[in-house]
Parts: sequence; C-alpha cells; structure tokens
Amino acid sequence: MRATSERNIVLTGFMGSGKTSVGKLIAEKTGRAFVDTDDLIEQRAGKSIPRIFEEEGETAFRDLETEAVQRAARTHARVIATGGGAVMRPQNREALRKTGDVIFLDAEPEILLRRIQNDGTRPLLQTENPLERARALLKERRPVYLQADMTIQTDRLTEEEAADAVLEALQTGARRVHVNLGERSYAIHIGRGTLSRLPELLDFAPKGAKIAVCANAHIQRLYGAALADSLNAAGYDAWTADLPDGERHKTLQAAADLYDQFVENRMGRDSFVAALGGGVAGDVAGFAAATYMRGVPLIQIPTSLIAQVDSSVGGKTAVDHPKGKNLIGAFHQPKLVAIDVDTLKTLPAREYAAGIAEVMRYGVIASEGLFHTLETRMEDILRRDALLMTEIAAECCAIKARIVEQDERESGLRATLNYGHTFGHALETVTGYKRFLHGEAVGVGMVCAAEMSAARGLVGREFCDRHRALLHSAGLPSTMPSGVDPTAMVDAMKMDKKAVVSSRGVQLRFIISRKIGSAEIRGDFTEEEARAAIEAAKR
Amino acid sequence: MRATSERNIVLTGFMGSGKTSVGKLIAEKTGRAFVDTDDLIEQRAGKSIPRIFEEEGETAFRDLETEAVQRAARTHARVIATGGGAVMRPQNREALRKTGDVIFLDAEPEILLRRIQNDGTRPLLQTENPLERARALLKERRPVYLQADMTIQTDRLTEEEAADAVLEALQTGARRVHVNLGERSYAIHIGRGTLSRLPELLDFAPKGAKIAVCANAHIQRLYGAALADSLNAAGYDAWTADLPDGERHKTLQAAADLYDQFVENRMGRDSFVAALGGGVAGDVAGFAAATYMRGVPLIQIPTSLIAQVDSSVGGKTAVDHPKGKNLIGAFHQPKLVAIDVDTLKTLPAREYAAGIAEVMRYGVIASEGLFHTLETRMEDILRRDALLMTEIAAECCAIKARIVEQDERESGLRATLNYGHTFGHALETVTGYKRFLHGEAVGVGMVCAAEMSAARGLVGREFCDRHRALLHSAGLPSTMPSGVDPTAMVDAMKMDKKAVVSSRGVQLRFIISRKIGSAEIRGDFTEEEARAAIEAAKR
Repeated sequence: MRATSERNIVLTGFMGSGKTSVGKLIAEKTGRAFVDTDDLIEQRAGKSIPRIFEEEGETAFRDLETEAVQRAARTHARVIATGGGAVMRPQNREALRKTGDVIFLDAEPEILLRRIQNDGTRPLLQTENPLERARALLKERRPVYLQADMTIQTDRLTEEEAADAVLEALQTGARRVHVNLGERSYAIHIGRGTLSRLPELLDFAPKGAKIAVCANAHIQRLYGAALADSLNAAGYDAWTADLPDGERHKTLQAAADLYDQFVENRMGRDSFVAALGGGVAGDVAGFAAATYMRGVPLIQIPTSLIAQVDSSVGGKTAVDHPKGKNLIGAFHQPKLVAIDVDTLKTLPAREYAAGIAEVMRYGVIASEGLFHTLETRMEDILRRDALLMTEIAAECCAIKARIVEQDERESGLRATLNYGHTFGHALETVTGYKRFLHGEAVGVGMVCAAEMSAARGLVGREFCDRHRALLHSAGLPSTMPSGVDPTAMVDAMKMDKKAVVSSRGVQLRFIISRKIGSAEIRGDFTEEEARAAIEAAKR
Repeated sequence: MRATSERNIVLTGFMGSGKTSVGKLIAEKTGRAFVDTDDLIEQRAGKSIPRIFEEEGETAFRDLETEAVQRAARTHARVIATGGGAVMRPQNREALRKTGDVIFLDAEPEILLRRIQNDGTRPLLQTENPLERARALLKERRPVYLQADMTIQTDRLTEEEAADAVLEALQTGARRVHVNLGERSYAIHIGRGTLSRLPELLDFAPKGAKIAVCANAHIQRLYGAALADSLNAAGYDAWTADLPDGERHKTLQAAADLYDQFVENRMGRDSFVAALGGGVAGDVAGFAAATYMRGVPLIQIPTSLIAQVDSSVGGKTAVDHPKGKNLIGAFHQPKLVAIDVDTLKTLPAREYAAGIAEVMRYGVIASEGLFHTLETRMEDILRRDALLMTEIAAECCAIKARIVEQDERESGLRATLNYGHTFGHALETVTGYKRFLHGEAVGVGMVCAAEMSAARGLVGREFCDRHRALLHSAGLPSTMPSGVDPTAMVDAMKMDKKAVVSSRGVQLRFIISRKIGSAEIRGDFTEEEARAAIEAAKR
C-alpha cells in the first residue's frame, strides 16, 4: 500500500470524479506518464466508447475494458485513470492493486453531475432523470470503490487540490474526511502524528485563543500536557482541564466540574474546548462545550479506537442518568476532529478489541469491503498497523459522515448506526455495566440481531457464523452469557431512547441487516422474537 | 382601538403588503365599502400617480395624498387602503386613527418585492437594486408603520388568510407573530384566554403525546393543574412536573430534578415539555427540554410580563452558575409560544413593573412608536389593560422575532437586545442579586448606557431625561444607588459572556442608542467611560 517510485498510481471513481484531469496533474507533478484506460480501449477498438456501447453492447465493452486494464496494470510508475465501471470486475481490481496504489476519488452525485453536465458522450447518463440514475449507480458501485487503498473526498477540492491530496496521502498515509453540514461542516484528519500537527490544523482558531485541553489524568500524562505545550508554543493560550477517569464518571457532575474549571480559567464564548481521550472525554467535554455559555467551539481528539471510528464524529454529546445511558445530552458538531492512529498503541488490548466491534458494525451496515478487510487482515489490525488503521478509521469516518450528513439529528437513517446497540445497551444494563465493555456488548448485540434476522429467514446461517467468527478472531465475546434473562433484557430495551412510546405501549425498533453492507430500521419484530434471538445467541 | 361597526378599518404597509387586495376581501366579507386613497388621488388629479410624480414631484404628490387621506378619514364604516407612504405624515396618522383602527400589514422586503415584481407602475422601485432600495425604505418607514393599532405579519399568509387574520384580530384582540427560522419556525399566540385555547393551538402534537407541564407550586395552583386537565380532556397525556420557586433555584440541580421526573414519568423523545411561568420556568424547563435525550419539543407558556415580551421567544435557555448568570445553557427554539395576557393580572406589582423595563428596552432599540406608547399610556399599562398589553406584547415579540430571524445565535445584531443589560447584570452581581429584580437592574442599566452616550456627545440630555422619566412613571428605580462601586461593576462586566477575551485582555462591548428606536454594538468605550457613566447614573 506504500507509494514507491515503481508502483502505479491508479485513480478510480464515478464519471465526473476527475480521474482524468486530476490524473494528468499528478503525472505532471511527478514527471510520470499518464494512461487513461478508456483511451486504450478506443485505440484498440478503433472507435469511440459510445459507439462501442451502441454497436456491441455493454458486455463487449466490459471485455475490452478488462483487456485494457490488464495491459495498463502490466506497466510501472505510471498514473492510470480507469473508466467509471472498470473496478466492478474483481479481476480488474486484483490486477490494478498488484502493481499500484488504488485511489478512489469520491464525490456527491450532485457534484459529479455538475462536473459532467455538458458532456454528451456519457452513455449511462442519457436518461430522463440523470441525478436519480447517478445516485442509483453510485449506491451500487460505491461499496466497491471504497475497497480502494485510499479514498479522497473531492467535493470541496479543486483539481489542483485533489492532486495534492492524493500525493500527500500517498506520501504520509494521512487522510482527510469532510463532514458537510452547511455552516456546521468540518474536517476529520486521520493519520500518524496528527497530534503534533494540531497547531497547524487549528488554522481557523485565532492565535491567543484559550483552549481547554480536557482529559483524564492518564491521558493528560500521555498526551495532554505535551499537546498544551505545543499549542502554547504556537501562540495559543492552552491549559489542561481535568476529567475523572472511567465510564461511571460520565455524569452531570463531571460536566458541572468542567463548568467550574472553565469559569475559573475565564473561558469566554470564543474559547475552545478540546476533548482528548476516549468516548467519556468526548461525551463529557463535548456536552460541557455544548452547554457552556450556550455553546463554545469544540475540537475532538479521540485516542481510543471506539472514539476514533465512531463517537468523535457526528456531534452527539451526552452524560448518563442513573436511569439511562446518554439520557442528558446535546447535538454539538465539533469544528475539527483530529485522529492520531499512533495513540492506539497505548490502548489496553481489551479496550482496543472492543473498538473493533464498532468497526465491524460499519462493515455490516454499510461496507462489505470493510467487513472483508476485517475478515482477512485481523492480524495486522490486532498489531495496530498504523497505515491500515488509518485506512480503516478513514472509511468508518466517511461512512458515518455520509450518514450524519443525511440525518444529523437521527430522525431516521442515522439510527442504522445502532446495529447491535439495542441489544448491546440492554446487555450492559442487565449486567450492571460491569461485565462488558460497550464494544463487547455491541458485539454480542450484533449476534442477537443476526440471529433474529436468521429466525425470520431474512438471512442464512452463514450470516450469523460470519458475525461470530469475526468477533472470535478479534478476541471478542461472541455468545450471550447463559445466565442473562431475556425478559429482563427486553424490559431494559423499552427504556431505550430508540423505543417509540405511544398510547398503545412501547414499540421496539431494531436495526436489521439482510446482507453484509446494508441495514434497515424495522418496527415489526416482537418482544418474543427478541427474547428468542437472545436465547439463540447463547448457543 | 376597538373595532365597532362604525369605525373604519385602515390598512397600511409597504407596497406589495397587499393593502388593496386584502382590503377588498375584507370589504367583501364585512359588506363594507372599499376605498383606496391612491384612487382618490388619481381621480382628483385626473392623472396616474407615476405621472404626478414625474410632472409635479413627490412633495406635490404627498400634498394630494394628505388631502385624500383627510377625505377618507371623514367617512365611516369603510375599509380604507392607504398608499405606502401615506402614514409618514403625522397629520395623516392622526386623521386615520380618529375614525378607524389602523392595521399594518407587515412582510419581509424579499416577499414584498416578489409580490410586486411585475408591476411597472411603482415609481420608487425604478432603481438599479430594488431589493436594497426596498430594504432601505422599509427600515426608514417600519418604525412609523409599527405605530399602527395592530400589526399583522403576512409573510406566510395568503390574501384570504391575511383578511381573516385582520378580522380575527379586530374581533378578539388576539394576535399572532411568526418566527421564521426554516425548520425551526414557530408561532407566538398572544391575547386573552390563550391558556384555555392551548389544546387547539397544539394541533401539531399528536393526540396521546405526553406533555410535562413544568411550573412551580404557585403557578401549578393558579394555572398548571387546570391546564393539564384541559390537555387531558383533549386527548393528551399531560402531567405536572414540579419546579422550585424563585430565581435562586435557576440551577443545574433544578434541571437535574426535572430529568429525574421526566425519566420517572417515562418521557420519550417525542414527549413535550411545557414551560409554564416566568423566566425561571422558561429557562430551567427549556434547558431540560434542550438536553433531555438530546432535545425534546418545547412549548413556552410565559405568565410574567418579562417572559411574555422577552425570554419565551428566541430559543435561549439557561441555568445559572455560582460564578455567573446563564453560564450553562443551550439554544432550543420552542414549537409554540402561548401568551395569555390575562395571567398578568396575577403578577405582583413590583414584578409587573420590572417587565415594563424590558418593554422600554425594545422601544429604545427598535421602536420610537412603542417608546411613545409607554410615555403616553402608562396608566393603562399599569392597570394591565388586556387589549393594550396584547398590542404591546405582540410588538415586542415581533421586534424580537425579526432580530432572532436575522441572528439566531447572537453573533451580532441579537446583542442589541442586551441594551442596558451589560450594566444591569453587573449591578445585579455587585448587589448580590438581592436588591434589584432583573428588570429593575436593566432599567438602571439603560440609564447608565444613556449617560455613557451623552458623555460622548452622541445624544443630548433629553435622551437621558426621557429614560429616567419613563422609568419613574412605571414606578421603577431610575438612579444608581450611591453605594455601588463603579470599579466592582466594571470587573463584573468583564466576566460577562458578551465581553470579548483576547490576548490583549478583556474588551467590553456595549449596546448604545443614538436615537430612540435604534441601537448599535460598540467596542470603543473604555472602562473609564463605563465607570463615569455609572457615577453619572447616581445623580
């Protein structure tokens, strides 16, 4: 996956993603030769691609394309732009990856269409509603595109910037994901050494601004004090604010203690709160930032795997109530998320593994490619390979960003992120939040969800088996403890925020997957089916 | 101000506000004759208005207009539409009000322009940038329009609906102000008996929905229990939640107590929180609604004058921190504000008077007409005349709505609402929140702001005198207590959320008025000037 001078740089993506123009710029910047597989096809066939489609049909075109891709993949040190559909055939992907680093240039369908709107030669878009067609095509192809070595989001980039982003990603492995929420948009920076790059990433914060680096004592020792020093050296007025250590301190009292420290340190409306650490830091410091002076700017600097791939992105902040997790909270989008994968090295093994369950959840609901990566590269994941974890975190963040963009306040789609969580939360509740880490409970919860789908015949046995096998390979629990009372768990589910309370009682909502890489929200499963699934997960 | 069958119904407003078309509809619905003063002018002059402008100039036109208005005002029981500029001359306003109820049809400049865009006969809009011109004209004229007996916001109304709204307002005195914030838009209903109409105003809440009626014991006794009963009779699942009584309980603990009650009563994400009472109820229950399950829908039912004209509108919620007022909070727009002016009758006199200071503040920053109403009708205000207070509350809410629409999160303009508040908050702080009610402190704070302007020569002495006289007539303190230390007050200001903290220290921001009816945010006043103003306010 490293870009050496010998390996090709292969650009993939939908039409309009800029493969050709960005590719030519990269070729120029690196002094490489540029190859467009579409050109190879036209040369070989002696006619234009629209004519090939028209006279010989798509299958013939795809055969020609495979031949061209294989030919291109036999070269070295080139920049290769591929046709929009080229990577759909597995043998094409294999060939390209052997000799090159494959980079997916991602963009929203609206932006893609705007870029190609005056090009009459695009065969697949000669339809009545091109946007709908583009969306459908992208939905189908994106999971395959995302199997690229790297994904660069180009929505807000010029061609020049996109070319630079590709080269930067190849050189450093650093990645950037944008969360597009209008005025509340922000960037997620992922890679090695992101912590030390924080002063430069904070270019939007005026020098002299106060920054409260909020972390527990352990994280302050490891990273917080050094971070505050480097921020101060860069001209900021950073100081360290103390958070208690541990999930059981995710309380309103912890937020109140932060308010006290903020007041004492004269934090104003334009001061920044940096939440440094795992999910608890992000949640408590995030909630305090959301509510101090009715909201001050927040920077998320997650150091645990679970926070890096999930809780730091999307603006959810909360503290627990004795009667329910996350019952008190607010939506407050960060101004920046800075993910340093090197911090994963200092995580206890059990906590790290728990984070893998959340990654797996993304695989199930949104990316068969990611699920496959987990199945095939668990060893590298467990030794916390920095480049691989950068890729994985970037993909998880990109999936979450896309979902949050469509449903910021969880009125629908965003709920699919709760796959395994309805069962998981209930399992945490009935075991008193002592026996399982959150991610571990979510892992077992996913097995329950899979078993519930299987009992309905929505998926086969192998679907459940893949769940269990993957959890097992990560060293995570994959079965429900035999002592757990299914009725108690279902009762706990009814207090979940996701349950719909109406005059007819409480209706449970479940996230169900019928195929790795997709999920849906269902309200048609009964309490009895849920109890049966919990029993089935015990075996 | 009452509509009897004899009094004319007079419509005023900018071009495009619908005076003619809405007026004709009202005439039809009431069987009255319709008169358009522009028609009277054209008949008298024997030529079109554009030609009068062209051949004789604007002054000649205005003279013709005054003559036409005087003629129309001598009739009875008619519907009269006036030209856009007709009410600019005081003698025209006087004449129209003698025999009729004057109704201002208000709308945003963008909407006004859309309505008239195909009408080539509008002389004032034959300019290069009509929107800019319309905005400038409206800014100049709106304060005069707002001196009408009633204002109907027509932005979101059809002509038919606008006609009905005018008739409803005339018959019942009930008024409606819309706050336009996209998805977060809502209506403010103002009038007598609004409390008993709440079940019908809640048409957006599905039957069966849980509603927590949050109020202190006193307000529960007066209104809460009955309100819950009427909501339950209408098919809702309402219950009363207890709030502590008094400003000193506006704490995080009070919010925490509400969370407990919400959990106990199984409030879900779709349950409603109704904040019933004064500013404390709106703030504490509002903050709890903003943060329970990351935000549940809120209904504001203010019963104090200060809450009716100010704190219930605009989405600010907060609790106090020992070191600062409103330091912990959130922006959370209500779904509905229901203002029943009859509840003002049960307010203690001192508290009622304190609310008048907030009304006065709107007059200073945005409406000379409102300030004038306070100066001329204080007796009616002090006896809490329901129709007059409906008018006043509606105007205050309309002013606030317009400001909040332009600056929801107080990045600029909204700060003008803090006129008198920077000094006022500091006065409350140095007197330990014991000596002054909030409104009383704001009243003295406005005197300080006026004195500071006067010392710079931005306003004359009479500006300060009008401040003091008005406060005095309302029975409010109008001088700073001699024992207050100006330095201590300025120190307190520096902890205010509005102060800008930078590496060069704390910069104070003040809201300054240079003319009754307008305000600006200034950062160029020194601590010394502030101290001098505090001293001057003692005299």
